[in-house]
Amino acid sequence: MFRKILVANRGEIALRVMRACRELGIRTVAVYSEADAQARHVRYADEARCVGPAAATRSYLNIDAIIAAARETGAEAIHPGYGFLAENAQFARACRDAGLVFIGPSPEAIALMGDKAAARKLADSAGVPIVPGTPETVGSEEALAFADRIGFPLMVKAAAGGGGRGIRIVRDRAELEQALVIAAQEAHAAFGDGSLYLEKFLERPRHIEVQVLADHHGTVLHLFERECSIQRRRQKLWEEAPSPALTPGLRAQICEAAVRLARAAGYTNAGTIEFLLDAGGSFYFLEMNTRIQVEHPVTELVTGIDIVKEQIRIAAGERLDVSQDEIRLHGHAIEFRINAEDPSLGFFPSPGIIERMELPSGPGIRCDFGFGTGDEVSPFYDSLIGKLIVWGRDRSEALARGRRALDELVIEGIATTASFHRQLTDDPSVVAAAYHVQFLDERLANLQ
Amino acid sequence: MFRKILVANRGEIALRVMRACRELGIRTVAVYSEADAQARHVRYADEARCVGPAAATRSYLNIDAIIAAARETGAEAIHPGYGFLAENAQFARACRDAGLVFIGPSPEAIALMGDKAAARKLADSAGVPIVPGTPETVGSEEALAFADRIGFPLMVKAAAGGGGRGIRIVRDRAELEQALVIAAQEAHAAFGDGSLYLEKFLERPRHIEVQVLADHHGTVLHLFERECSIQRRRQKLWEEAPSPALTPGLRAQICEAAVRLARAAGYTNAGTIEFLLDAGGSFYFLEMNTRIQVEHPVTELVTGIDIVKEQIRIAAGERLDVSQDEIRLHGHAIEFRINAEDPSLGFFPSPGIIERMELPSGPGIRCDFGFGTGDEVSPFYDSLIGKLIVWGRDRSEALARGRRALDELVIEGIATTASFHRQLTDDPSVVAAAYHVQFLDERLANLQ
Repeated sequence: MFRKILVANRGEIALRVMRACRELGIRTVAVYSEADAQARHVRYADEARCVGPAAATRSYLNIDAIIAAARETGAEAIHPGYGFLAENAQFARACRDAGLVFIGPSPEAIALMGDKAAARKLADSAGVPIVPGTPETVGSEEALAFADRIGFPLMVKAAAGGGGRGIRIVRDRAELEQALVIAAQEAHAAFGDGSLYLEKFLERPRHIEVQVLADHHGTVLHLFERECSIQRRRQKLWEEAPSPALTPGLRAQICEAAVRLARAAGYTNAGTIEFLLDAGGSFYFLEMNTRIQVEHPVTELVTGIDIVKEQIRIAAGERLDVSQDEIRLHGHAIEFRINAEDPSLGFFPSPGIIERMELPSGPGIRCDFGFGTGDEVSPFYDSLIGKLIVWGRDRSEALARGRRALDELVIEGIATTASFHRQLTDDPSVVAAAYHVQFLDERLANLQ
Repeated sequence: MFRKILVANRGEIALRVMRACRELGIRTVAVYSEADAQARHVRYADEARCVGPAAATRSYLNIDAIIAAARETGAEAIHPGYGFLAENAQFARACRDAGLVFIGPSPEAIALMGDKAAARKLADSAGVPIVPGTPETVGSEEALAFADRIGFPLMVKAAAGGGGRGIRIVRDRAELEQALVIAAQEAHAAFGDGSLYLEKFLERPRHIEVQVLADHHGTVLHLFERECSIQRRRQKLWEEAPSPALTPGLRAQICEAAVRLARAAGYTNAGTIEFLLDAGGSFYFLEMNTRIQVEHPVTELVTGIDIVKEQIRIAAGERLDVSQDEIRLHGHAIEFRINAEDPSLGFFPSPGIIERMELPSGPGIRCDFGFGTGDEVSPFYDSLIGKLIVWGRDRSEALARGRRALDELVIEGIATTASFHRQLTDDPSVVAAAYHVQFLDERLANLQ
């Protein structure tokens, strides 16, 4: 086992990783930007190194500085957390070249799953359902034939688009014919490339993702799924485990598909395979996240498995010491992301000094926070200050605990999403778990 | 279900009960002494009533004032917590007479199990093993015959003694013969009554207790056992679930014995049946606690069942909605009692203002505290300021979490037992779970 690990991150996930290290008896090295010299993760670590100025590109994304900090402090491994360098194959490779263990998958697996088209192809070949679509360039004739086969609605996508740009939804043949002409013109104007492709459009799907763990000895396990449909502008805000939408049969299918894909990718360490689930109970591979995720605690609470410790053990070459049959679902967990954002101002960032913070406690509560009373939430980084996670014997008890915990949570000095979550806990659609990925944006649009 | 409950207690248990009420949507009434006007449990409640001066006999033990507070505020039920009036049959009867629901067993069950001789007789008739002993007065001849049958060591006890006074341990026939003469003379001198009885002396037994739940519809369930052998002068300091000393077969036997006794007593609500377990794997009924116990959270963490909510539901007449088969052990939990006592001064009380308190958080941590930064720990009441409870997949992970959590815990301004617990987590006997009820007193005596 490692004696010392450098944590290449900040905020709550840096503390989360360091807590796992402490429990494993491993010393920790924090890295920090000049803006973070007083940050909680720096105080929690056994030692700390400044890696550059506030701008992340010059500190938390500075591969050379981070590798140098690891070498100077004698760290044997680097945990990247999420964000920053976590899915950067070049960083994973730089670690390897420097004789350091990158706590995550191989650079090859990161690169493979980071290439969306390659990942989609791999899923298809592994028998994992993908959203039906055409090749990257398609003529009118093929487009219409595809529509005849798949049915409507469809998305017409600009091959050169991305990030939601260059997408049109068409609901019948006439709209498709028209879109093929107009979208090609628009794409040409916007991206200098008029080529298009088609994909089935899923109406109000749910976001379901499966946590997998894979060691270097051929064992691939799943830790069941999370439901992350409550999103604002594609940012998850509230996550649950298990998904209220899955039957045991569907759960088995989707979890087995995830294991199949991880195996096909030669994947190691912890990873998450994201799916969309339509109202008819069909699921489609969306993408794989090759790192620990923000929402991992809900899985930890319903399985009892410490995913970060497993990441470290796997990276150290240990075998997974649990079998798939031993991993059982136990109760229900919900995570509320507490962001320094003002829900009454369109979720505008609300950085500043936290004048007072009191975390809830008592039964069924877990708090993973990177900030506390007196700490400054800097405008330089993302707005997540912590996560409140609740557990109950069933979803109803978890919701009741969530209300109680959000009522107990005190954060003064900055605005946060806590009050918004408290409202959601009473929302009839949320109480009934009758939501989908567009639910929150529709709800917020209606309120305006 | 009740709409409003009065909590007749203070400190962490008052908060614990109020948290359960909030999650059930029930309003809460706090009572407080003049010394506790600013206490945390008063601030947490929906409303509060002062019931008298600081001395507990004039406030928290003042039955009339508490019943009056419940009537004035329209509370329908009273939760007594532990200590104070929790095992007072007269109080339970006064609640009933006032048309209030006492959240606990019937006054009759409290009185029955509070009479140690009657409880012992009931256990014996229910086929629950009791420590072998003679009737309350015994002549020399019967005493020697008993010794021949049971073997040594034995305790010679003064019938009029109590609280550990008037007890002699004898290890052979000669010591017994001598003790029968001397102890009778001493008992006569000390208590004005020379009558003696004998009981088998258990060498270094373990303290194992079984949590039971019984509703008003004939269902009696157990929630497995707790191991509470780490005690200082008969005060529990550290508790675990499950017990590291039980085999599955022994666990089944002891838990079934507890259910049998609860059933024989016509018991309802939550209760705990305490046993001593000797090195040979024999267990003996010690006594029953007819209330919620300080250490209930370890059972909650390994079963997932919220015992306080179940108490409230049972008192409201609901049926237990879980079957014995559905209650399964999940992982391992340890509770550290954080008392305002100075371990370096013989655990002398350390009341005062808490200048700063930071509770640990992250995975596997539960904090049940009645005090926080700025609160005063009063010299009038017991020294328990809170409980730190940790959960792990197995005992080893729970211990590692315990070390990490105790390292994170900050309490400034008063001395506490936290540092002592931190030492215990590294004690080889504790790590090996090789302890018994005399373990800690022996260890402390050796250190002096």
